Amino acid sequence: MLISFCCAGTKSQPWLEGLHAAFPGAEVEVWSAGAPAADYAVVWTPPQQFIDEQPRLKGIFNIGAGVDALMKLRLPPGVPVVRLDDAGMSVQMAEYVCHAVIRHFREFDGYEADAAQGKWSYRKPHLRQDFPVGVMGLGVLGERVSRALTQFDFPVMGWSRSAKSIDGVQCFSGEAAFNDFLAASRILVCLLPLTPDTDNIMRQDTLARLKPGGYVINVARGSHLVDDDLIALIDSGHLAGATLDVFRTEPLPAAHPFWRHPQIIVTPHTSARTLREESLTQIAGKIRTLEDGAPIASLAGVVDPNKGY
Amino acid sequence: MLISFCCAGTKSQPWLEGLHAAFPGAEVEVWSAGAPAADYAVVWTPPQQFIDEQPRLKGIFNIGAGVDALMKLRLPPGVPVVRLDDAGMSVQMAEYVCHAVIRHFREFDGYEADAAQGKWSYRKPHLRQDFPVGVMGLGVLGERVSRALTQFDFPVMGWSRSAKSIDGVQCFSGEAAFNDFLAASRILVCLLPLTPDTDNIMRQDTLARLKPGGYVINVARGSHLVDDDLIALIDSGHLAGATLDVFRTEPLPAAHPFWRHPQIIVTPHTSARTLREESLTQIAGKIRTLEDGAPIASLAGVVDPNKGY
Repeated sequence: MLISFCCAGTKSQPWLEGLHAAFPGAEVEVWSAGAPAADYAVVWTPPQQFIDEQPRLKGIFNIGAGVDALMKLRLPPGVPVVRLDDAGMSVQMAEYVCHAVIRHFREFDGYEADAAQGKWSYRKPHLRQDFPVGVMGLGVLGERVSRALTQFDFPVMGWSRSAKSIDGVQCFSGEAAFNDFLAASRILVCLLPLTPDTDNIMRQDTLARLKPGGYVINVARGSHLVDDDLIALIDSGHLAGATLDVFRTEPLPAAHPFWRHPQIIVTPHTSARTLREESLTQIAGKIRTLEDGAPIASLAGVVDPNKGY
Repeated sequence: MLISFCCAGTKSQPWLEGLHAAFPGAEVEVWSAGAPAADYAVVWTPPQQFIDEQPRLKGIFNIGAGVDALMKLRLPPGVPVVRLDDAGMSVQMAEYVCHAVIRHFREFDGYEADAAQGKWSYRKPHLRQDFPVGVMGLGVLGERVSRALTQFDFPVMGWSRSAKSIDGVQCFSGEAAFNDFLAASRILVCLLPLTPDTDNIMRQDTLARLKPGGYVINVARGSHLVDDDLIALIDSGHLAGATLDVFRTEPLPAAHPFWRHPQIIVTPHTSARTLREESLTQIAGKIRTLEDGAPIASLAGVVDPNKGY
């Protein structure tokens, strides 16, 4: 068995060691052009050439939850593409989003600015019923985030392509319900997969539907958001601000206005990092399942090419 | 029935209106020296003189969770002292503490400092098993805070005077277990009532037992913490910092070193504000219960004078 590792921007050595440890009899190699064809591929934003050189793949494992980069390639038909299924990411997302929601709702930024000036001053507390949170995307990550938010007694709504049911979360589904979902939300959290349907989903006409004083938290992909539309809606006063972890170009270019906008918080795509140990365990387990002859459908996280996630 | 309102630093009008609305037949008055004796007192840090002028009180209602100021007075024996029982405070505490824990664990302060310089840079994520959180005080507030923390998969421990049992929380109780509890904690959250037993409980010898890189979150009372000991342990490198909401003197004096210490975050006693509507509803309900002749023990939040909380 040959496992080929083709992950841009990733230190390969510890991954190779982990795969070796899991499959002592297998060959595990970092891909380079012209290398032998592999049985399994472990990838992050691989080039088309990598895919084109693989005539006998049994599975492609993406070391992230989002497969949007992979879906832009011509992939061999019938080969399962498997994304990480939680693998320690959902708790990180819950942390990141709850931190951002609480920080905004409780005005901790303002308190810190006061403290920096040695100023002891109260702010009138907001009412949490005035801060309904809408979560777009109710997969493994979105569901965990929604549940975590309900702990803090915010009204929580969710929107997804297919109908879901989550305790304590008012669930909307499908395009027909999208405007109602937006109109009921003040804080909007994006955890959608990036597909042609969700590209630019946060733009002038959709964000304008949020309740006045709306707030955007994007932890999915930069292309979900039209940057200029967000800035215009903040500057017009309809939106109160945003916490953004993902951008159209990463690293976010130095000249981008997000960096210096006083109502926008920028973090460097760190909301949910791939955890190597958890990911290796998960991927190794799935390779074993396939090697044992189990049906592809028995794996969690297999991408539906028609949906694109 | 006469209800006397004696609350320092509190805008009285909306409270009086709320009590009037709840008891249309009653007199509700802001206390002043020499005023008629009341049946019920609604108080926050009242003077001894107020108590001394009340020969026929049937109940004293404290519009906060902590009764330490009240316990320093000579109180009439047999009159129940009732503190707020949650009344919207526990969710605020859960928010405040989770925000502080996540912010520290995920280094969001550092990320913000980077962003202020337009710097896109990763930090190696910490492992949550290296950040066990210990919560001192497992009353209504401490229990809610502990449960909220378990949502984020931190190892959570609790310490209380009497033994408690909370799902997912490793509970320690009594003085004998205190050192073990401290040694197992890296982040220490104080939600204790302030009593002679807990005064100065966070001092050199106790804080030094926390795991290296320890972090203190105080949302109880300033007198739980020996300020200079905290600073010395941070400056020596044993502790990584603190988030403090309560202080020995409030407002925190301008010259106090906490204001400008780079590893200490100061907020102006805002972790859990008394919510008027919830508190009025709760106090009015309890006055009705007493007027109906129900036993004092049937009320939640009655202070045990021997415990002091």
